[in-house]
Amino acid sequence: MRNSDTYLAIPMGDPAGIGPEIILKTLVGASEVLPLVVVGSERLFTRTARDLHLEGAFEVVVNTLPSLQAAQAKGLGCILYDIGGIDLDQFVYGEVSAMCGKAAYESVKVCVSLVSEGYCKAIVTPPLHKEALQAAHVPHIGYTEILADLTGSKNAVTMFDTLGMKIFFHTRHLSLSEACKAVTKESLLNTILQCEAICSGNGVFNMDLPLAVAGLNPHCGEHGLFGDEEGVAIVPAIEEARARGINVVGPIGADSVFHQTKIGKYRAAISLYHDQGHIAAKTLDFNQTISLTWGLPFLRTSVDHGTAFDIAGKGIADNQGMARAIRIASEYLASEEGLS
Amino acid sequence: MRNSDTYLAIPMGDPAGIGPEIILKTLVGASEVLPLVVVGSERLFTRTARDLHLEGAFEVVVNTLPSLQAAQAKGLGCILYDIGGIDLDQFVYGEVSAMCGKAAYESVKVCVSLVSEGYCKAIVTPPLHKEALQAAHVPHIGYTEILADLTGSKNAVTMFDTLGMKIFFHTRHLSLSEACKAVTKESLLNTILQCEAICSGNGVFNMDLPLAVAGLNPHCGEHGLFGDEEGVAIVPAIEEARARGINVVGPIGADSVFHQTKIGKYRAAISLYHDQGHIAAKTLDFNQTISLTWGLPFLRTSVDHGTAFDIAGKGIADNQGMARAIRIASEYLASEEGLS
Repeated sequence: MRNSDTYLAIPMGDPAGIGPEIILKTLVGASEVLPLVVVGSERLFTRTARDLHLEGAFEVVVNTLPSLQAAQAKGLGCILYDIGGIDLDQFVYGEVSAMCGKAAYESVKVCVSLVSEGYCKAIVTPPLHKEALQAAHVPHIGYTEILADLTGSKNAVTMFDTLGMKIFFHTRHLSLSEACKAVTKESLLNTILQCEAICSGNGVFNMDLPLAVAGLNPHCGEHGLFGDEEGVAIVPAIEEARARGINVVGPIGADSVFHQTKIGKYRAAISLYHDQGHIAAKTLDFNQTISLTWGLPFLRTSVDHGTAFDIAGKGIADNQGMARAIRIASEYLASEEGLS
Repeated sequence: MRNSDTYLAIPMGDPAGIGPEIILKTLVGASEVLPLVVVGSERLFTRTARDLHLEGAFEVVVNTLPSLQAAQAKGLGCILYDIGGIDLDQFVYGEVSAMCGKAAYESVKVCVSLVSEGYCKAIVTPPLHKEALQAAHVPHIGYTEILADLTGSKNAVTMFDTLGMKIFFHTRHLSLSEACKAVTKESLLNTILQCEAICSGNGVFNMDLPLAVAGLNPHCGEHGLFGDEEGVAIVPAIEEARARGINVVGPIGADSVFHQTKIGKYRAAISLYHDQGHIAAKTLDFNQTISLTWGLPFLRTSVDHGTAFDIAGKGIADNQGMARAIRIASEYLASEEGLS
């Protein structure tokens, strides 16, 4: 019998996008990613599987908690939890619709309750579509916001893992000029403290290595020649963190810090703005860039690509990211348990 | 007999750094990078070669133009042009000195004159040290500025080539907040026009593919939600360029545009600020990132790493970048000739 603690919950993503396809591709014949519970519309998965010749992914379909529990008790590794919500007569691949936005949102909600009730331990997410969420009157722009809201979490922190290169984000969805202003001693110190706490709680991080903070300006401002944020905010924040016993270094020029993190010099890098770390991760390997959300009551990993409506339903979506998001969730969960 | 038009000129870089070492490592036994003329101190190269067991790189040492001409007429492929300037009694690896800064500068000057007098066709540069240049009262911070000054060039444009991924830079040494302000319709249109002219003049660029302009804000500002530069400046500049017949697209999210350029979707990407393109190139492959300078009377390629004073004289410097800078210069020269 399987331990239900190890199950991963997987919402279907926006069903009009490539989410169901990359889930099915990952599951068909890939036993190493199990055990997991996919939450979504059975009709939709059956249709997608038929259209794309990806039948046979699921061992069982359930639609109640007792039947889920029974399936887990039997040790089944690949379970579809049907929540309905898709009328196939209205369904079109690659189109924004309120029906799909609502079904995608409901599948996330059910995943959260499966975790909170102990059926699953972490959530792995395929992409959502922002406009479909809007059409369904969901008042959030993405998973991070939805999950923070559903769980009452106030300090969600995003991290990337690209082939082992780990990047935390100081800020995300701010204009670049606002992101420059958001680099203050206090806020950066707070980010460093949060990152240190996250690292200390999971054995996947090599605590013998320092955290590294990226510079904001070219060459870290070249001693104030172009930009003073390093002197005014970044160095003071790092010094204060070091005085509190945290192994953190920097600022390191942004054109070196990610390379050096990639080759194993740092435990993780702290990116000061959205694109700094995004460019590093996604240029290195677009499909293998996995996003993790910390600061929720559970671990969440995610692909970091979009719904790709332009190729949905065609069978040509690349599922490397989805497969890696599932593997990473299992690895990080195992490392968490190793410490606890 | 060799055609002197094909010789590359190579200044020695700051001799207290890893420049002479990476030149010697590239030359010893590597006939495919020839023909070339290295310009620097014979004593220094002899000392470095002995210290690091890299003897036998040069076929001949000359110290006058007639003897250089004679060596080229004989078809020799690896020539050291001795300009002296280093007193070995005062020389220390890894230390800033006016002597080294001056010798490095003089070697660049001689390279420029070798090109302008027809002995060589392009220049390939190992790293300089900014503080050594200052100590020698050279009023420039690097090659781009030195070469622009020596040749009276006003519109030098930097481009990276990392494993074929080509990136032009709209701005370089500005603080990040100043770089945001430097994204105006007029200045960006000017950059697009310059890049188009450069691409049209060299067969290495695939003119069937569009130029791509990166976005400035996360997700290109998400329709003005975070940042308005895309709407105010970038889109109008691209539209104006397209109206003038230029095949240019964008803005493309900065976390996608470099990946897409890498996989061959765009001829080249235009990076809007220093770190945007630097992070992409150097995270992808730090040692294989080659910098090219356009807008000079000749082609210049360069490694894009520093003098690495901490490891100078130890024999452990990685010469992949230097070898690739030489190969890239030969390839781009051949493509230029193919068009003319």
